[in-house]
Amino acid sequence: MTTRELLIAAQSAKTTLAPAGTDTKNNALLYMADALIENTDNIMAANKQDADAARGRISDSLLDRLLLSPERIKGMADGIREVVALPDPVGKVLKRVERPNGIVIERTAVPMGVMAIIYESRPNVTSDAAALSIKSGNVCVLRSGRDAWQSANAIVLALRKGLIKAGLPQECVTLIEDTSRESSRELMTANGLVDLLVPRGGAGLIKACVENATVPCIQTGTGICHIYVDAAADLDKALSILVNAKTSRPGVCNAAECCLVHRCVAEKFLPSMKKALVEDRKENPVELRLCEESAKIIDGTLASKDDFDTEFLDYILAVKIVDSVQDAVSHIAAHSTGHSEAIITEDASAANAFTAAVDSAAVYVNASTRFTDGGEFGLGCELGISTQRLHARGPMGLCELCTYKYIIRGNGQIR
Amino acid sequence: MTTRELLIAAQSAKTTLAPAGTDTKNNALLYMADALIENTDNIMAANKQDADAARGRISDSLLDRLLLSPERIKGMADGIREVVALPDPVGKVLKRVERPNGIVIERTAVPMGVMAIIYESRPNVTSDAAALSIKSGNVCVLRSGRDAWQSANAIVLALRKGLIKAGLPQECVTLIEDTSRESSRELMTANGLVDLLVPRGGAGLIKACVENATVPCIQTGTGICHIYVDAAADLDKALSILVNAKTSRPGVCNAAECCLVHRCVAEKFLPSMKKALVEDRKENPVELRLCEESAKIIDGTLASKDDFDTEFLDYILAVKIVDSVQDAVSHIAAHSTGHSEAIITEDASAANAFTAAVDSAAVYVNASTRFTDGGEFGLGCELGISTQRLHARGPMGLCELCTYKYIIRGNGQIR
Repeated sequence: MTTRELLIAAQSAKTTLAPAGTDTKNNALLYMADALIENTDNIMAANKQDADAARGRISDSLLDRLLLSPERIKGMADGIREVVALPDPVGKVLKRVERPNGIVIERTAVPMGVMAIIYESRPNVTSDAAALSIKSGNVCVLRSGRDAWQSANAIVLALRKGLIKAGLPQECVTLIEDTSRESSRELMTANGLVDLLVPRGGAGLIKACVENATVPCIQTGTGICHIYVDAAADLDKALSILVNAKTSRPGVCNAAECCLVHRCVAEKFLPSMKKALVEDRKENPVELRLCEESAKIIDGTLASKDDFDTEFLDYILAVKIVDSVQDAVSHIAAHSTGHSEAIITEDASAANAFTAAVDSAAVYVNASTRFTDGGEFGLGCELGISTQRLHARGPMGLCELCTYKYIIRGNGQIR
Repeated sequence: MTTRELLIAAQSAKTTLAPAGTDTKNNALLYMADALIENTDNIMAANKQDADAARGRISDSLLDRLLLSPERIKGMADGIREVVALPDPVGKVLKRVERPNGIVIERTAVPMGVMAIIYESRPNVTSDAAALSIKSGNVCVLRSGRDAWQSANAIVLALRKGLIKAGLPQECVTLIEDTSRESSRELMTANGLVDLLVPRGGAGLIKACVENATVPCIQTGTGICHIYVDAAADLDKALSILVNAKTSRPGVCNAAECCLVHRCVAEKFLPSMKKALVEDRKENPVELRLCEESAKIIDGTLASKDDFDTEFLDYILAVKIVDSVQDAVSHIAAHSTGHSEAIITEDASAANAFTAAVDSAAVYVNASTRFTDGGEFGLGCELGISTQRLHARGPMGLCELCTYKYIIRGNGQIR
């Protein structure tokens, strides 16, 4: 079917899914998880086709993301079952007011409608995104990267068996068949057919969406995150947080890419930073890209201008000496992607100045930027991290996948 | 100055305005209100220039919207003073959670940043929008229609005197100098310089924004609102609500444009409707545009297909007979703009089916659609009515002009 035909079918499913009760949705999720396990052989066979076609064409780390195993499929099923346990956001009365004329106004959470997700080559995104969509009452239209399409297709076929068993239309989860760039473009401009578009991918995809999407869209995922070590920092805390934020998982969006160090503590902090990030690490020592002034204190590559605007997603850290909290805030305003930034300080007024002035989704005092995550924030799960201001900011859990409507009850009131 | 230069200046003002305290903002509002009164002569002179240039070129009703008087200017000043009394949305902790690891996460309301508003020729929008922006900590960039530009400019010059007196940068309120279409286009695509775009105008402007805006944008204001008279309606209530929704102010977006009548009550309801809306009204009788079946019961113009997709904003009402709540819901899904719809019924299950299935910003049971309004909803004021699902839906008060950020405080936590 064409992308447009699939979207029209998806739209028709929303009148059944949106008002579905919590039990119906949870049943569907449990059946979907079972169906993944039952169809392990089909999914593995499809994944082998993808892997054979991709081998040699893509990097080893991308190939690793693509590869499934029965254990990984079980992990996906467990992920769906975890969503069952989360509270249903739909129908929640967010605000209630009775007006003097007697009308009662309830702001009530409702699904967005049809949610399209453009992603790349991690097959587990297929089941994660489908589970979050179903639980939040949203019909899900998936546009997988070409390298993982056979795997995604086998997963969606399994998930649809679960939907049918639960009495929901199989169109609640749909995979776009066209994997050319054209289908992404079609989703971005399918006004009236796509109620929310969530691109999950690299900077190129996000930029294409910002420039071309005419449907409602959430930017997710790029993170040039900063750790600012203040003059009043506890330097042990600073070191521990920086090491964690840079090296615990450098390929994710909440990893730190740049360390700003107050001039007053630079001579003391930088050498210990170098020891911890470079000298003490036998595996994966961090490459430091230093501003001119920090290069006078420790050895390292001299940073190019671009290094302060790059999401390395690797064992690389840009380092810059600053003169004040304000100087740090200005650097962040100019170079951050609005994801997560931290100040390390024991000075409450410095902390308050930083949290007030930094305009990012998550602003930390004395904690690692790695906490910007749906699970860590207590949302249970997430579809991604929004780096925009409109609608949702930071981790997008089930509540953030909903909108609201006002339901107003009266007994004949007129104005 | 060019539009781009004005936007850059506006961006620089946000670092002062966003963290400004409630007292500072309220003081500024009071000075702005005083300055409007003090500059009444200048504003009237500018308004005369606009009116002289427009007379004969625009309709009498548009000219009436454009004309100011000392009383209207006083009304604008009073409007600003009313905003002083409203609670400040900025800095409010919307959600607070302490995680098992001890980090405390606060979701905190913050301004959007620079808010651009494209509007037409009502000079009072200039001061209303500026007041709501300042109170919500947002820098305001106004793009007035050409016919009212001299008036808007005189108003902004006065408001800026108030800002300066309060110690805030005058760039907090800025009027775009270029009134060509090009400046609207520039605002729609000024990524990084416009944090929120709110078009306030007719269907053409909204369509242009949806198709061309690459900055975050809120659609406001078009309303094809429906009143559905159910089989179980109290027909007296239905008549009173319909007359109110259609005739109390037909030129506004929450006025009803279409009445759907259940087949079971059509023979009884339609003649009394015709009496109330047509025969009993000496001034402004309503023109009925009837579906074929209702035309068998009462006289009136036969509706064209387009009449069910038209925001008349006039004493015209489309009328259609439907077979059930579901039939009404389907008609609304196909023809509504997602603004406001009402069911008139004494049957709770019909009411629940309607409120569950209708996907509009405001869904009423036994009350007039005319209540969809910031003031009537208890928000104190509004910048417009959002008819989109993303971010804000329905009346946009001060809270809806804000976004949030997460502020996370720890004592060295790592992940």
